[in-house]
Amino acid sequence: MSTSTQQAAGTPAAKRGAGMVALAYSGGLDTTVVVHRLTHQHGRPVAAILVDVGQNEDLDAAAKRATMAGAAETVIVDARERFAEEFLAPAIAANALYEGKYPLVSALSRPLIAEVVVEAARELGATAVAHGCTGKGNDQVRLEVGFGALAPDLEVLAPVRDWAMSRPEALAYADANGIDLGGVSREKPYSIDANLWGRAIECGVLEDPWAGAPDEPYAMTRAPGRLDQVTEVVVGFEGGVPVAVDGRRVGVLGVVERLNEAGGAVGFGRLDMVENRRVGIKSREVYEVPGALATLIAHQDLEALTIERDLLREKQRLEARYAELVYDGLWFSPLKRALDAFMAEAQESVSGEVRLRFAPWSCQPVGRRSPRSLYRADLATYEDTGDGFDHTAAAGFVTLWGLSTRTWAAVARD
Amino acid sequence: MSTSTQQAAGTPAAKRGAGMVALAYSGGLDTTVVVHRLTHQHGRPVAAILVDVGQNEDLDAAAKRATMAGAAETVIVDARERFAEEFLAPAIAANALYEGKYPLVSALSRPLIAEVVVEAARELGATAVAHGCTGKGNDQVRLEVGFGALAPDLEVLAPVRDWAMSRPEALAYADANGIDLGGVSREKPYSIDANLWGRAIECGVLEDPWAGAPDEPYAMTRAPGRLDQVTEVVVGFEGGVPVAVDGRRVGVLGVVERLNEAGGAVGFGRLDMVENRRVGIKSREVYEVPGALATLIAHQDLEALTIERDLLREKQRLEARYAELVYDGLWFSPLKRALDAFMAEAQESVSGEVRLRFAPWSCQPVGRRSPRSLYRADLATYEDTGDGFDHTAAAGFVTLWGLSTRTWAAVARD
Amino acid sequence: MSTSTQQAAGTPAAKRGAGMVALAYSGGLDTTVVVHRLTHQHGRPVAAILVDVGQNEDLDAAAKRATMAGAAETVIVDARERFAEEFLAPAIAANALYEGKYPLVSALSRPLIAEVVVEAARELGATAVAHGCTGKGNDQVRLEVGFGALAPDLEVLAPVRDWAMSRPEALAYADANGIDLGGVSREKPYSIDANLWGRAIECGVLEDPWAGAPDEPYAMTRAPGRLDQVTEVVVGFEGGVPVAVDGRRVGVLGVVERLNEAGGAVGFGRLDMVENRRVGIKSREVYEVPGALATLIAHQDLEALTIERDLLREKQRLEARYAELVYDGLWFSPLKRALDAFMAEAQESVSGEVRLRFAPWSCQPVGRRSPRSLYRADLATYEDTGDGFDHTAAAGFVTLWGLSTRTWAAVARD
Amino acid sequence: MSTSTQQAAGTPAAKRGAGMVALAYSGGLDTTVVVHRLTHQHGRPVAAILVDVGQNEDLDAAAKRATMAGAAETVIVDARERFAEEFLAPAIAANALYEGKYPLVSALSRPLIAEVVVEAARELGATAVAHGCTGKGNDQVRLEVGFGALAPDLEVLAPVRDWAMSRPEALAYADANGIDLGGVSREKPYSIDANLWGRAIECGVLEDPWAGAPDEPYAMTRAPGRLDQVTEVVVGFEGGVPVAVDGRRVGVLGVVERLNEAGGAVGFGRLDMVENRRVGIKSREVYEVPGALATLIAHQDLEALTIERDLLREKQRLEARYAELVYDGLWFSPLKRALDAFMAEAQESVSGEVRLRFAPWSCQPVGRRSPRSLYRADLATYEDTGDGFDHTAAAGFVTLWGLSTRTWAAVARD
Repeated sequence: MSTSTQQAAGTPAAKRGAGMVALAYSGGLDTTVVVHRLTHQHGRPVAAILVDVGQNEDLDAAAKRATMAGAAETVIVDARERFAEEFLAPAIAANALYEGKYPLVSALSRPLIAEVVVEAARELGATAVAHGCTGKGNDQVRLEVGFGALAPDLEVLAPVRDWAMSRPEALAYADANGIDLGGVSREKPYSIDANLWGRAIECGVLEDPWAGAPDEPYAMTRAPGRLDQVTEVVVGFEGGVPVAVDGRRVGVLGVVERLNEAGGAVGFGRLDMVENRRVGIKSREVYEVPGALATLIAHQDLEALTIERDLLREKQRLEARYAELVYDGLWFSPLKRALDAFMAEAQESVSGEVRLRFAPWSCQPVGRRSPRSLYRADLATYEDTGDGFDHTAAAGFVTLWGLSTRTWAAVARD
Repeated sequence: MSTSTQQAAGTPAAKRGAGMVALAYSGGLDTTVVVHRLTHQHGRPVAAILVDVGQNEDLDAAAKRATMAGAAETVIVDARERFAEEFLAPAIAANALYEGKYPLVSALSRPLIAEVVVEAARELGATAVAHGCTGKGNDQVRLEVGFGALAPDLEVLAPVRDWAMSRPEALAYADANGIDLGGVSREKPYSIDANLWGRAIECGVLEDPWAGAPDEPYAMTRAPGRLDQVTEVVVGFEGGVPVAVDGRRVGVLGVVERLNEAGGAVGFGRLDMVENRRVGIKSREVYEVPGALATLIAHQDLEALTIERDLLREKQRLEARYAELVYDGLWFSPLKRALDAFMAEAQESVSGEVRLRFAPWSCQPVGRRSPRSLYRADLATYEDTGDGFDHTAAAGFVTLWGLSTRTWAAVARD
Repeated sequence: MSTSTQQAAGTPAAKRGAGMVALAYSGGLDTTVVVHRLTHQHGRPVAAILVDVGQNEDLDAAAKRATMAGAAETVIVDARERFAEEFLAPAIAANALYEGKYPLVSALSRPLIAEVVVEAARELGATAVAHGCTGKGNDQVRLEVGFGALAPDLEVLAPVRDWAMSRPEALAYADANGIDLGGVSREKPYSIDANLWGRAIECGVLEDPWAGAPDEPYAMTRAPGRLDQVTEVVVGFEGGVPVAVDGRRVGVLGVVERLNEAGGAVGFGRLDMVENRRVGIKSREVYEVPGALATLIAHQDLEALTIERDLLREKQRLEARYAELVYDGLWFSPLKRALDAFMAEAQESVSGEVRLRFAPWSCQPVGRRSPRSLYRADLATYEDTGDGFDHTAAAGFVTLWGLSTRTWAAVARD
Repeated sequence: MSTSTQQAAGTPAAKRGAGMVALAYSGGLDTTVVVHRLTHQHGRPVAAILVDVGQNEDLDAAAKRATMAGAAETVIVDARERFAEEFLAPAIAANALYEGKYPLVSALSRPLIAEVVVEAARELGATAVAHGCTGKGNDQVRLEVGFGALAPDLEVLAPVRDWAMSRPEALAYADANGIDLGGVSREKPYSIDANLWGRAIECGVLEDPWAGAPDEPYAMTRAPGRLDQVTEVVVGFEGGVPVAVDGRRVGVLGVVERLNEAGGAVGFGRLDMVENRRVGIKSREVYEVPGALATLIAHQDLEALTIERDLLREKQRLEARYAELVYDGLWFSPLKRALDAFMAEAQESVSGEVRLRFAPWSCQPVGRRSPRSLYRADLATYEDTGDGFDHTAAAGFVTLWGLSTRTWAAVARD
């Protein structure tokens, strides 16, 4: 959490925050109305907490909207570096892809937002935390479980869910109360959540899962312009953490930004899928996640070179569990910690480089090397020279490897 | 198994086959030398069994080579339909991708070849079966475990492994004994195995995993010629089995052929990876599997729409196990049967259609529909009308969903 | 469902049941008060459904209590055979033990009760179903998920949870309204749920998990009277289903009854544990489950003899998942069906006999045999004669079995 | 490794050990013959390494036998403490029970013996290591994989397997060469392996899995003498490690010794089972493991109180994998290390005490307490006072918990 601005001051935190609600504020219609209603109708002072997780929005303008809607405090926290180092890095170690596909864009930012909001609440002496999620989505689960784990003593408010205001009602409220919505469009064809790790797009025409997604809502990716738009990027890892691009150390944040750029330029990283929300419903989701997918492709490729087979196989099963629990809002759970310990141990050997080739609509690994490579050309080669493999062992191995199946087949036949 | 040719006849099978070896014959250098040596040096009559699994080779020419090398019998079996229906269909149900990536091209054909060879051995009265695999690969495991499970009474020969002839030695033997190698190249820069489900390419320059793969060995896929080379194919499934293309019923074989074509045309389906062979070594493999990957993408996409969440999650774990056991040569094992039963039950609802979009280097699902769809727009919508979701239930759900984590965090904090 | 009694008749079901509530009636204080309040305060006719799952209570007396409390219909259903064949048999196939210990006494009866209540509701034309569970336990989950899966059109009532009456309040209500509580004790030191598969005991002094459980609430088991109280029972299985005792075919019900008797006589089958309820809390539970544990011990023992290793290992993992989903109320889920298919396939070979030895406080398997035994003395023996094992294969096997670990160790050392 | 004796000295290790074979020496017939043959027939100096893992044998007498058979060096290493702290403690953390039952008596000692033998080889400058296992068992796998991981540069000899001497042949060799077999019985009705963690008994009459095991080979356990032979032992844990008995700190070694005594006195801890050896065969095994089982019972019981549900469930699956890999000889594998990291994290909260009740033939937990207890009486109670549970949340929870199943059932019905 590198910077924060616009904090009110003058009175001790404990006093200042009495009854105060620290709100995870996005700058959109819903949370702006929440600021106003909590302040003016419920008499609760509101601290609007804006967390920069790389969403590429005008956060200063958003902060002003909160202040004008009545926020007692408005805080902007630049958490991009922290997001990359503390949230993306472990997710990369676990190759976290929900249902085998979705790299958990929103699911990874929510526990960070919960942390930042709780920290702000502590600093400001607030006695409650709040979010603007509805009752149908996953984010309510993630934020509330996060709040509960981090600050069981704080009251948790979910006004958007509990008031159940529709969008027209919220717009009418804003109009009636002179709330300046600034850049917030009155038309909202899509519900979008964005951060460094990608963009999640829901609603509108996407609610028919048979209908193709229009190009309109995409922002990180664009259709490639030329067939020969082909580039290679070499991603360097240390202990499973992506740290370098083409030999330059740029940190996790730098790697993801570079891969977002490289992938986005060729239209790589669009997902169109149906997924299972924690609350028990299926939803159709469109994502654009060029850097996330490219990072994971490189990481998996290096793991294949440097992790022993049995460990790799078991890790694959646990990766699915890991992605599920993150999706399901259990980032702060003890299971998450134990899985992180497993993953960390497994990453010990995952250092080296992977060459990624970006071409129109695609990203592929085309080479990998490592000082910890377990690939031994002398064992693998079918060439006749330099062969280090014990061929005669193979016959014995095959005999015993198949023995239990052979015994079963013989008995079953009788 | 639709046709077979060139079988000798006249004497009863039992007599004819006394001491006979039914050999899984590929038409290449190694197995042709095996035919000759077994026949002329070891005095064993050989039945060369050629199985057509869609490898697109001149099998008649190959059969002639076997006969000229001394084979007592030469049999060509067109097993393409059987391969699709009995081997690919269950693998599709299980989304079988070894180590998350490789659709098991060779691994799926080997148990079929074992079956066909055993059937031929029974018909011919052969008392032994044989294969031409080396001691370093996976195929020896797959064929021998298959032979052992299907015909524990038959002798199993692995002459290539046991004689340990190098390629130059084999070529010298062929020359010395006047074996006509026909189309078999003396230069063999790659080791290739092909069938309907894809092509596996090993050896040569690929043995350096950092070096990029050259375009040369690719045959099913080619670089796209235009940026706007975009097509859509609608794949239809019934109970998890792909049966239709763009509304026409073409069977599994037809679907895979159509998707091989559509994917191959845009360069989709190339894999470059390091994998773990069963014998304990890592190898670098290049595959081209356009139809296989496209089929699996479509299948997974339809499953997401039609399979309930908890079942989908558990299935994902078992899919990894399934792919491992097929890769590891245990197709005929009781675990495989039990997993098939699980998969079959899970496929009950997987009927419907998926729209696949092929563009240069890529294939993406862009729409899906099903009479058994579990997607309910009235539950998922964020719109204000037609909402069938009980918002008030969410608060209670979140409270109890996070309770065990909250309790743990509170106790840990004390 | 063999018999049912005391059903009212005369008018068509549809008419009779208009507004009627089919209640899972236990005969205890809570559900008796529910009958009275629903009838007299809410004006809803109540059908009290008593399901005999082997709880060894006077159901006729209970039925009379319901009638006197105002029930419009009272139905007793003898579901013991059905419980054994349709619920215990699959659980035995899956060796279902929640958290490795608890054989799911209540969890297995609830889906059956849900089925019976829904069937009765259909027959009577009732438009609602109801249960008497509180909000803290697992049974509300099991019954409501069951109702929802079986009859999504029926209204579901949970009056005990929703009214939140305390026990003193319920007793006061009964007194005030002249409800005859018959055999229902006013003092209720324990909360007990019993059926053929065992008894679950909660509450009272057990709420301190450090305090030992008193002998008082045990009913199926008793302290053994003599040190030499040792008996053997031979349990026979067919396809994984326990069907015989000491050579006599007695069916699942008969086997469980016999083992309850044999185990109970020597004090075998008491469990004292802390477990995790689905709603997120830990509870201390005492069970007595002599027949359930003995049946599972015998079943697992026969599986060890007749199931191939890899299948057994994977089955073990799925057994844990199976027990969890049954505990968590998901008996009617599609995951349950897919797991049942896996288990059924795995049971194909599980036929044979197991000798169980009961001694004071204990039950142990001491012998097992099967026509499908995979134990081959000629392979296993360390004797010098009759050895069918290929010793020379072992060296090759060990070499390749350890190869990936050896490679990893060598690279890690460098 | 606390003590070692009888090491020769005087010349530098490197010189002394040239060509020397460090042999895992047991003192029995086979390894004594190996000492003699390697020394006298193969001209290899032998260092006989005796490792005390609590087997309760006269190791000095055994050492003398080795010396008299020609051993150049004889070393006794007391590794009991190290066995307890470095091998049993992690196995306890993982509740390691192979196939759900067997606490891995031999499987846990073999990697320690491999370590000690390699250490001795290094110290003595030996260039080879050797073991006396046959080709049918698991121990060859465990020792050779261990040797390969720890010392890939050392030659590995398996003379008993490779020479394939039968027992009569070995006895004849001993007679012919005047080898003093001392306490080694010529009759050997059973093959027994013993250490602190238990005793494994194979062979003889046990090779018929239907026949009951005789009492004769049991040594750690005996039939109880009185029906009222009942004792309680309180076992204390810190971070998952058993460290105290009845409030006294005695370390892991002390706890296991005390529980061996308490369990052995009442006949608790006998197992009779069929298990799957790694080499692909089933064998019938009898174990006596009173202390091992009692320790694991106590540990699991305390985990139930102190570990959060989701972590406990996932840990249960990994425990099975852990036991398998230890059984399969992969103690020194990277998967083992990653699983250990998971287990260690999960043990963080596992501190407290468990009351074990030993009665004739049985051991049961009857109470547990912990400063990290997650059991909260105020949540669990069904009493009317002090209830901290949010009953109203339950209705919402149940609604959404069952939603995906309800949706599936509704669609399936249509």
